[in-house]
Amino acid sequence: MTRKQLFENICKKKSFLCVGLDPDLEKIPKHLLQKEDPIFEFNKAIIEATHHVAVAYKPNTAFYEAYGTKGWTSLEKTIDYIHLAYKDIFTIADAKRGDIGNTSGMYAKSFFSQLDFDAITVAPYMGSDSVTPFLEYPNKWTIVLALTSNKGAEDFQLNENLKTNNGNYFFEEVLKTSMKWGTAENMMYVVGATKAEMLSQIRKIIPEHFLLIPGVGAQGGSLEEVAKYGMNKQCGLLVNSSRGIIYAANDETFAEKAKLGAEKIQQQMQVLLEKMGV
Amino acid sequence: MTRKQLFENICKKKSFLCVGLDPDLEKIPKHLLQKEDPIFEFNKAIIEATHHVAVAYKPNTAFYEAYGTKGWTSLEKTIDYIHLAYKDIFTIADAKRGDIGNTSGMYAKSFFSQLDFDAITVAPYMGSDSVTPFLEYPNKWTIVLALTSNKGAEDFQLNENLKTNNGNYFFEEVLKTSMKWGTAENMMYVVGATKAEMLSQIRKIIPEHFLLIPGVGAQGGSLEEVAKYGMNKQCGLLVNSSRGIIYAANDETFAEKAKLGAEKIQQQMQVLLEKMGV
Repeated sequence: MTRKQLFENICKKKSFLCVGLDPDLEKIPKHLLQKEDPIFEFNKAIIEATHHVAVAYKPNTAFYEAYGTKGWTSLEKTIDYIHLAYKDIFTIADAKRGDIGNTSGMYAKSFFSQLDFDAITVAPYMGSDSVTPFLEYPNKWTIVLALTSNKGAEDFQLNENLKTNNGNYFFEEVLKTSMKWGTAENMMYVVGATKAEMLSQIRKIIPEHFLLIPGVGAQGGSLEEVAKYGMNKQCGLLVNSSRGIIYAANDETFAEKAKLGAEKIQQQMQVLLEKMGV
Repeated sequence: MTRKQLFENICKKKSFLCVGLDPDLEKIPKHLLQKEDPIFEFNKAIIEATHHVAVAYKPNTAFYEAYGTKGWTSLEKTIDYIHLAYKDIFTIADAKRGDIGNTSGMYAKSFFSQLDFDAITVAPYMGSDSVTPFLEYPNKWTIVLALTSNKGAEDFQLNENLKTNNGNYFFEEVLKTSMKWGTAENMMYVVGATKAEMLSQIRKIIPEHFLLIPGVGAQGGSLEEVAKYGMNKQCGLLVNSSRGIIYAANDETFAEKAKLGAEKIQQQMQVLLEKMGV
């Protein structure tokens, strides 16, 4: 999917919502466990209930690998289902991969050819040749971890003691270096909503790039703050919600409750898009 | 596997060789492609030919994920086969995972429960809570990326411009911070052989930890240099070779050539172990 198409979908749905598909057999409704593929059935129901207000879905690979080959099959079925049923959905493999060049090339093959995702999240620690193999696929996106939403972000990314001589946090150096590897047409960045006050600083470095924002909801980030400091003229945001939508209920009403939860966020997003003149 | 058991296996085999199982359908012998599971057959033949001189095997997950569910099945079969056939082998999932706490917990479940690996490689960028869930499994190992063997290591890990005020490279800060998350009994570090001259500096920070050393062979690192600067009293090294062994030939003699290649490295390792008095 191109940046233009993604922006058109945001305008059409008046939403920049990404739904995180992180299915956990211990948390999904019990009645689904009798099905042959409970994870796929769960995802399918969530997608059917929310696709009218979601522009993107983001399965985190950990929640599939935890169930081995069966989980990997559920992931394949989920992505195939999205692409068959809904042409206007942006799909993100939240995989946080990254390895030496030829190995990252195999990961790119896995997620862009084998599974046909639109985007993958990657970790920057190993530098340029661990990321550039992903950038070679046309109309595919590489989403680099910059400032994550977890407590551990303070260990390296946002550690005062590791500031460089020019006064930058380490994650700012990651932004400045990695932005040269691609363009705003094939790269995005992960920036946690729990650090929303950093967004205006980040926008000085990367005004154009889309940002994938986790941490709204269960992790405590504020949608208003994110829009205020992070939105640009083409929206430039994909805000993810996982647990707040997919686990809104764990009985037979789960899809209906997910729908209500997603619609509520979309309504907030519509107001924010109008307010910012997008 | 405990550190004591690992050291006993090193002493018994007079070897600290780790064989990287990175099967690529475009590179493995053509006659295997007629088999039902060419990747597993390839791995099984390599393991049978080299297990007497290898203390560890390291499948890189990228080379399995690239073939989707089929690849994941080959990985499961490979690990099950190693554990059934050879009790004294240390198994490493070269997966370079790392995510927020509950998600890293799912990866730990995947590789330590679902697949029963002894160890997994993890990326440190997201900090402590992205790594500690792996450390909760008894007798399992977490191998943190410190200084990798690729060119991109110079972007962040070994970048002069990113040295901290106390004169450390970024990867040294990663060592100093992350070593507090576990012990030399449940953590190792990846240090590329292509940076062997850095090993004496690294040994000042972490004298006891085992190091997983890629980059000998195809990537140009020297075994002698690695042993000279990196070996400690309990060896403290697992040196990986992938392409140099598994692709020593790509015809029906591949296993035999892999055996000769692995035995040659073991003989060099035996000399180095004796020279260092281990």
